[in-house]
Amino acid sequence: MTVHQYIEVNRERFLEKLFELLRIPSISAIESHRPDMDRCAELIIATLLEAGVDKAEIYPTDGPSIVYGEKMVNPDAPTVLVYGHYDVMPVDPIELWNTDPFEPVVKDGKIYARGADDDKGQAFMHIAAFEAMVKTGALKCNVKFMLEGQEEIGSKELTKWCEKHKELLQADVILVSDTSLLGMDTPSITCGLRGLAYVEAEITGPNRDLHSGLYGGAVPNPINVLSKMIGSLIDDNGRITIPGFYDGVYEHSFAARDEINSAPFNNKAYADSIGCAALCGELGYSTAERKGTRPTLDVCGIWGGYTGEGSKTVIPSTATAKISMRLVAGQDFNDITEKFIKHFIAIAPPSVKVKITPSHGGYPYIAPTDTKAYKAAAAAMEESFGKKPLPFYSGGSIPIISTFERVLGIKSILMGFGLDTDAIHSPNESFRLENFYKGIDTIPLFYEKFAE
Amino acid sequence: MTVHQYIEVNRERFLEKLFELLRIPSISAIESHRPDMDRCAELIIATLLEAGVDKAEIYPTDGPSIVYGEKMVNPDAPTVLVYGHYDVMPVDPIELWNTDPFEPVVKDGKIYARGADDDKGQAFMHIAAFEAMVKTGALKCNVKFMLEGQEEIGSKELTKWCEKHKELLQADVILVSDTSLLGMDTPSITCGLRGLAYVEAEITGPNRDLHSGLYGGAVPNPINVLSKMIGSLIDDNGRITIPGFYDGVYEHSFAARDEINSAPFNNKAYADSIGCAALCGELGYSTAERKGTRPTLDVCGIWGGYTGEGSKTVIPSTATAKISMRLVAGQDFNDITEKFIKHFIAIAPPSVKVKITPSHGGYPYIAPTDTKAYKAAAAAMEESFGKKPLPFYSGGSIPIISTFERVLGIKSILMGFGLDTDAIHSPNESFRLENFYKGIDTIPLFYEKFAE
Repeated sequence: MTVHQYIEVNRERFLEKLFELLRIPSISAIESHRPDMDRCAELIIATLLEAGVDKAEIYPTDGPSIVYGEKMVNPDAPTVLVYGHYDVMPVDPIELWNTDPFEPVVKDGKIYARGADDDKGQAFMHIAAFEAMVKTGALKCNVKFMLEGQEEIGSKELTKWCEKHKELLQADVILVSDTSLLGMDTPSITCGLRGLAYVEAEITGPNRDLHSGLYGGAVPNPINVLSKMIGSLIDDNGRITIPGFYDGVYEHSFAARDEINSAPFNNKAYADSIGCAALCGELGYSTAERKGTRPTLDVCGIWGGYTGEGSKTVIPSTATAKISMRLVAGQDFNDITEKFIKHFIAIAPPSVKVKITPSHGGYPYIAPTDTKAYKAAAAAMEESFGKKPLPFYSGGSIPIISTFERVLGIKSILMGFGLDTDAIHSPNESFRLENFYKGIDTIPLFYEKFAE
Repeated sequence: MTVHQYIEVNRERFLEKLFELLRIPSISAIESHRPDMDRCAELIIATLLEAGVDKAEIYPTDGPSIVYGEKMVNPDAPTVLVYGHYDVMPVDPIELWNTDPFEPVVKDGKIYARGADDDKGQAFMHIAAFEAMVKTGALKCNVKFMLEGQEEIGSKELTKWCEKHKELLQADVILVSDTSLLGMDTPSITCGLRGLAYVEAEITGPNRDLHSGLYGGAVPNPINVLSKMIGSLIDDNGRITIPGFYDGVYEHSFAARDEINSAPFNNKAYADSIGCAALCGELGYSTAERKGTRPTLDVCGIWGGYTGEGSKTVIPSTATAKISMRLVAGQDFNDITEKFIKHFIAIAPPSVKVKITPSHGGYPYIAPTDTKAYKAAAAAMEESFGKKPLPFYSGGSIPIISTFERVLGIKSILMGFGLDTDAIHSPNESFRLENFYKGIDTIPLFYEKFAE
């Protein structure tokens, strides 16, 4: 039986296995879901063992556990370290989901569930492909699996764990599916990831909520103040105003920019796909550049005062915003966080107090396209899709990828099979069945070419 | 027995009666509290009948009911129409209350409960004073009571009801206790009230929540946009930037401003009392003027995106703010609402949608100090406090007061006995026992002098 035949025979079983994982609400951002994280880690161990690893082990950490498994076929063969994550994003606004986020359903050829794509679906493709190679005797590389439960909140424990287990994790390449294709007709391999600096900023005006009539006009309103401060962080040209924010930002050459802008892209269709009448962003850059090679500042959450039904006339004591800055090559999240804090305090009026809590951060990443691993991935995708993949600079962040490079000295290949329409991090996240199986089919081709 | 003696004998009973009212969570802004509104109205009817009205009746409306009661002693005597409200503000943030907002307690000489001051405590003073006058044969005026359950959300039903019952409501003055004294040593009568225009503004960017990495930098973020728009509404001099906002605003004469600023006031103590290192507001005006005679724009609530634990990296679909504008003599809330809508739409970038929902509004009010009613109130307070009261321009809004003038043609006397430290609309609202009984003692003096 060929690897492909094995996969065909086991299509339904693979899907059911994935569903078992998707049913566990392993939300890392919400502390009360810790037991779910544990259940999920246990299930992955069982799945890896069933798939054919020699050993699989749970490594407890101060956060969710790390799952490690391996199969060593030949000390002289190349070693592939597979990385993925079993934690998922929170599901709110829950009322916008058409079905239970943790009861996967297939509809119109798509799996709907939180984590269907990001990253349970994509990570499981590797376990399924591995099983197919093992059971058909096709596996020619050593394989190590490393699955964490903290990717969505910064991979802090995995970073420490990698520092402690450099020997165990020795490998020739790290293979990751946690990104998207430009399209089913435009296969791509992600060569750039943005970094991230995430902070929570709280403004305190009066020490208690005040009546907006009796006090209004004479006291600082923290929502007005916070709004004005946030509003000033991006100028009318879409440039971020924090002093030194763009220091060292990698400017792509005109040739590289032309290549980035050669990928098929239609601004109108893109705007339509998200229901916006117009796009916006930094002056002088295309949409592909804005979301791939330029840094950003987005408020991810804001709250303060009365948010219930009706109209309460109050000046609240505090207002708070969660702010995400996506960083690109040349920016360091610690440096950017410091610059943000310094600037935000500097622009606050003397009537309010400012409290900034840095959350997590991550370095940007750039992968070269002239390595053996990249070439194997490109060849595998070309065989599977019938088309040479484009190198792609993604706007997303997978901070751990640059950490791997810094700590383990290993480059990663980001061979993802999602689509931008999968609505990851949003209500009704989905993953197309076609992409799920295309991933399982393509991964063994990578191993085959990488072992040559 | 004199009126004063009657009040002394019944101190405890009056307090227990008030507590019964305070135990009912009659929150008009939250629809699910409608049964509590009904219970509260029923209890007031019983209380009025017990106090000695000839008749008392519940008038159902499309909102909470209106309670009316009257005692006609002599067709030739002047008639006093007492107005108050039995609805209260919502209680969130509930976690900041030291005790249950609907289980009144007395601590350090203060009644703690939602509505202790605003307005159950102050309205009940009138019922108690009325009972004392009736039972001691001292009542020399006709009295009409009108208590509504929608003051905190705009008195819409009462306005319609007044239009229908002009005959029933004929009176020589409307007497209201829903305001504060400048201090126990600085008695005052409120001569000005600010109006109110309240709107909810929603900004929609993408039609769903998006991943802030994959899309960030290329699409409109409704929180960033809303913040910038709000931030632009007040300039660096504290002036509101909506075109035409200040058209027609009544500018007090230098003499009047001197009088307003002659009331004892300490900016440092005021800032300390609310825990702020500095005050702020419109350039060129004192704190007393800023909160009494100048219009404002305060965001009372804002929300959008992820507001839970941890750090979700999302560009939300929508962001929303509740905005209150306090208006002064010369401004019309309909006109200001229109100007706000027009301006807010004009400053929105083309990439977002704007939806503005006007909530409620109210006209400002100015009371003359040369009327018989004002003079009776001033004489009553002087006798009770041993000091002539100051005319005071309050920053609060009681929209129905200007409605009374427009619909019924009757001026109101705002003889309130609260203090600014009562934390109305805030957690731990309170009302000093001393003020409660001072009010009950002073009200009969007003009737006595008004009947002369």
